[in-house]
Amino acid sequence: MATAITYEGKAKILTPTAEAGIFQVFFKDDATAFNAQKRGQIRGKGEINCTISSHLLQFLQNQGIPTHFRRQIAPNVMEVQALTMFALEVVVRNQAAGSLCRETGIPLGQELTPPLVEFYYKNDRLGDPLLTPDRLRLLNLATPEQVQTLVDLAQRVNGQLRCFFAECGILLIDFKLEFGWDDHGQVILADEISPDTCRLWLAQETDPVRRVVDKDRFRHDLGEVESAYQLVLERVLRQ
Amino acid sequence: MATAITYEGKAKILTPTAEAGIFQVFFKDDATAFNAQKRGQIRGKGEINCTISSHLLQFLQNQGIPTHFRRQIAPNVMEVQALTMFALEVVVRNQAAGSLCRETGIPLGQELTPPLVEFYYKNDRLGDPLLTPDRLRLLNLATPEQVQTLVDLAQRVNGQLRCFFAECGILLIDFKLEFGWDDHGQVILADEISPDTCRLWLAQETDPVRRVVDKDRFRHDLGEVESAYQLVLERVLRQ
Ligand SMILES: Nc1ncnc2c1ncn2[C@@H]1O[C@H](COP(=O)(O)OP(=O)(O)OP(=O)(O)O)[C@@H](O)[C@H]1O
Ligand SMILES: Nc1ncnc2c1ncn2[C@@H]1O[C@H](COP(=O)(O)OP(=O)(O)OP(=O)(O)O)[C@@H](O)[C@H]1O
Ligand SMILES: [Mg+2]
Ligand SMILES: [Mg+2]
Repeated sequence: MATAITYEGKAKILTPTAEAGIFQVFFKDDATAFNAQKRGQIRGKGEINCTISSHLLQFLQNQGIPTHFRRQIAPNVMEVQALTMFALEVVVRNQAAGSLCRETGIPLGQELTPPLVEFYYKNDRLGDPLLTPDRLRLLNLATPEQVQTLVDLAQRVNGQLRCFFAECGILLIDFKLEFGWDDHGQVILADEISPDTCRLWLAQETDPVRRVVDKDRFRHDLGEVESAYQLVLERVLRQ
Repeated sequence: MATAITYEGKAKILTPTAEAGIFQVFFKDDATAFNAQKRGQIRGKGEINCTISSHLLQFLQNQGIPTHFRRQIAPNVMEVQALTMFALEVVVRNQAAGSLCRETGIPLGQELTPPLVEFYYKNDRLGDPLLTPDRLRLLNLATPEQVQTLVDLAQRVNGQLRCFFAECGILLIDFKLEFGWDDHGQVILADEISPDTCRLWLAQETDPVRRVVDKDRFRHDLGEVESAYQLVLERVLRQ
């Protein structure tokens, strides 16, 4: 019997399991950037991202942050709790990079104190636009209480991940989180945490190209994409 | 003796006067749209916009809102108080239109209750990007107290202008304000208020093209641009 696909996204495929409320997530090697205008493959990415994500989600779970992670059942397959997702990307920024620099002129790498928590509308057709708090409210994408919970969780995740990566010799520049809610309305961290969804710089490296060990290597054709992902995997597992 | 130009923008020219702290503003017929990618002329616009602006700024001044307006000294020349400008565009939206619809998918014309007050970074190189409150703070474009003053003033201006235009049979859909501060640090409404800077719809007209009497006629090549500006002028002066 072929397994029904619940949802196929750009980087992952979700399928239901025999167990109610549990999904399997298959991590693909496919990579996209700039709202899917750029497409490619990163060899081994599916297994690497699934393993890094599993490790980090388990770590966060151990720190008391509710996550959808259940277990990793194959190198590129994760079992998770099925959730109703917010149509939001929650971005936490410790240092300026990417669209923040492009849109504000703030120099790359500028420390953001306190870290910036930003919301984007997860909507491919609209190009995942930045949301002000007013627009977020207007679009009814989350209640004011949920927004507060999302900000709190994002800040706690940042506190934990920043320390975790620091011990790996890696600076956590920024990252994107997705959240959903369960049948009881509890807000739960979902999706993935990987070099696809984080900006990661080697702490010891000052060269602006060599320090990059995340999807920016793919986005900007910096080369050595697979080995960068591999390096992050090794450092995360060593922790 | 040729008069020195202090600043030439896309729609106006500022020149100093013999009197310290007083500028003359020459309103041009030049029109631009989409961050100056589209350029053209609207015949008579300089005189029309100068006269409408003078009338509306004087009206707001009478209602207790501090403005830079001193007097209109020619059909296309206004005398104003020289200010230090915020690098901000303050946009008030009563009904959804323009970039709000494009970026959020909210349908054109949807009532926004309460009206939305949004900040944009006045920076041509960056394309006047939308600012979240956090980005506004990060860029130091105004102190938190100034931001509160700007929001309060923008809301008061909206309350006054909405009624004013209603009595002209015109719906004030949205508009852009610019503010500066004087030597005492007082925040003062500056620049212009005209069909270039407001979205205005004829209240009695439901046809989505015919109702438009503002720069959208130029932006989207709807024709009858001059006569729309002229209509607004006549209704404003009749008030
Ligand atoms: N626990 C979960 N329950 C339900 N959906 C989830 C869960 N975790 C992640 N998702 C969703 O599954 C999809 C993951 O697939 P993928 O990352 O490939 O999608 P995407 O390409 O990023 O985005 P899009 O949703 O726009 O296709 C996303 O839509 C994500 O929001
Ligand atoms: N009272 C004032 N004192 C000083 N500057 C003012 C005052 N009122 C308006 N200005 C500024 O004068 C300029 C008006 O010119 P104009 O509207 O043509 O500029 P613009 O093309 O909109 O924008 P830009 O400033 O990007 O060129 C704007 O920069 C505006 O901020
Ligand atoms: Mg995704
Ligand atoms: Mg202007």
